[in-house]
Amino acid sequence: MHTFHPQTPDWEPRVRASFARQGLMSSLHAMIEHMRPGELAITIPADPAYSQQHGYIHGGVIASILDSACGYAALTLMPADREVLTVEFKINFLRPARGSRFVAIGRVVRTGRTVTVCSGEAMAIDGDRRSTIALMQATMFAVPATPGS
Amino acid sequence: MHTFHPQTPDWEPRVRASFARQGLMSSLHAMIEHMRPGELAITIPADPAYSQQHGYIHGGVIASILDSACGYAALTLMPADREVLTVEFKINFLRPARGSRFVAIGRVVRTGRTVTVCSGEAMAIDGDRRSTIALMQATMFAVPATPGS
Amino acid sequence: MHTFHPQTPDWEPRVRASFARQGLMSSLHAMIEHMRPGELAITIPADPAYSQQHGYIHGGVIASILDSACGYAALTLMPADREVLTVEFKINFLRPARGSRFVAIGRVVRTGRTVTVCSGEAMAIDGDRRSTIALMQATMFAVPATPGS
Amino acid sequence: MHTFHPQTPDWEPRVRASFARQGLMSSLHAMIEHMRPGELAITIPADPAYSQQHGYIHGGVIASILDSACGYAALTLMPADREVLTVEFKINFLRPARGSRFVAIGRVVRTGRTVTVCSGEAMAIDGDRRSTIALMQATMFAVPATPGS
Repeated sequence: MHTFHPQTPDWEPRVRASFARQGLMSSLHAMIEHMRPGELAITIPADPAYSQQHGYIHGGVIASILDSACGYAALTLMPADREVLTVEFKINFLRPARGSRFVAIGRVVRTGRTVTVCSGEAMAIDGDRRSTIALMQATMFAVPATPGS
Repeated sequence: MHTFHPQTPDWEPRVRASFARQGLMSSLHAMIEHMRPGELAITIPADPAYSQQHGYIHGGVIASILDSACGYAALTLMPADREVLTVEFKINFLRPARGSRFVAIGRVVRTGRTVTVCSGEAMAIDGDRRSTIALMQATMFAVPATPGS
Repeated sequence: MHTFHPQTPDWEPRVRASFARQGLMSSLHAMIEHMRPGELAITIPADPAYSQQHGYIHGGVIASILDSACGYAALTLMPADREVLTVEFKINFLRPARGSRFVAIGRVVRTGRTVTVCSGEAMAIDGDRRSTIALMQATMFAVPATPGS
Repeated sequence: MHTFHPQTPDWEPRVRASFARQGLMSSLHAMIEHMRPGELAITIPADPAYSQQHGYIHGGVIASILDSACGYAALTLMPADREVLTVEFKINFLRPARGSRFVAIGRVVRTGRTVTVCSGEAMAIDGDRRSTIALMQATMFAVPATPGS
């Protein structure tokens, strides 16, 4: 695994401030589980409000936390005047999202001036068991930061 | 465009019943805008509860309604003893999800006994303007239906 | 469908010159079937030298001509000092690549200063029959042109 | 990493026999570098016959060897009466394919009765340097084996 170096000393509060502005993350009761330069993990509890037809978590919700985890993993490495938009992602669902909690880990695999490529892994936590439920490959794009974002 | 023929007379109520069981769809105030064999459209209102950091709708929410639209487009063509799981999807975000309403249209492009391929298009509606904000390519998989799903 | 406007009068010879430099395209006996601003079609003959294990054309070859068709569709719209790199693509294979000729059509669906999104469709031609065998969704990136490319 | 168990004692010669039938692999002078249950690596030399417009290897060629590496990684785990088709793949290009040799490694990440999900990594080898140039996420599908394939 690469070691990545953040370009600003305040990368962590900047990521937290942007995360706090995502209405979806607070609706999902999402929290940042950990972050380091080039990697960020988001965790959510199971919630029937976000289910698919069998009562498991909807794949789109898993995609949402993976997308945010990948985007914020990219943001940890950005200079202060940049923010990150998702150009595209692809997700494979390996197993139903069955469990009491879910964790999405985003990791930067290639960083450039404008394009950052990330990979993401989502896991279901069910008691002591942790199983991979989805894999993402995402392309992020650096744009000039909007004031207050 | 292909003309698809449903395999059961009750394809429409079956799709509506499954849609009604998706907790996420009701949390998003999602409604089926239209459906016909091989195609289904879902619409949601803008809602700050589902925003990203700039107040626009989170890409994961757009992915969620496209995923459900594609899955239910596939379900319109399934025999009564089958249901549909998403194997994977890929989504390109073309513009920020800015508008008062959003529509996701899923269309079957290829159907087989087990694998159905769909394409999806999401649009933002802002007054009289309607602009494409995302494109999806998705792979669905037919599995034996679970009783009551 | 959008109407796109080329930014330079010599877009067509520029595209042909770059296409002529792709060793792979000439190894595949690929030809440009048609082009217009925002769209380009490449055709190849069937050739056992490029088969998979059943004697049909290898999916990677279909991906190659779709990738080039999408990239050159994007190039038709670029200013003279830009060229196009593929950031990523996703391809669904709908049917085996069985036929005497194959056509890959790339179409620009969204163009920006740096990111262009394309969709591609590959068809097999077998006598009078023409069937869609693959769909692509691709992201292209504009970079400063290298002299002589 | 998972440990996978082949379902037949002759998985290795079966994979080699199918690989030998891919015309594209022999046109590319591709060789199997290594294989074990759930993983397979293919290597090719640089060759101007398979270049893009700058003389580097065409992305579609890298996609081709990754696709075959993923497909054969899946085949190592199949029973004797099954073979593998690619449903779809997604590839991110991280760097130009510049080097004297290229290696594509396919790894099974999830195996089921019909759907196998693989991830692939391609590397360029340039003297002592080995750098990752592309990442793939692919979905494979098991079908009844055609006699002699």
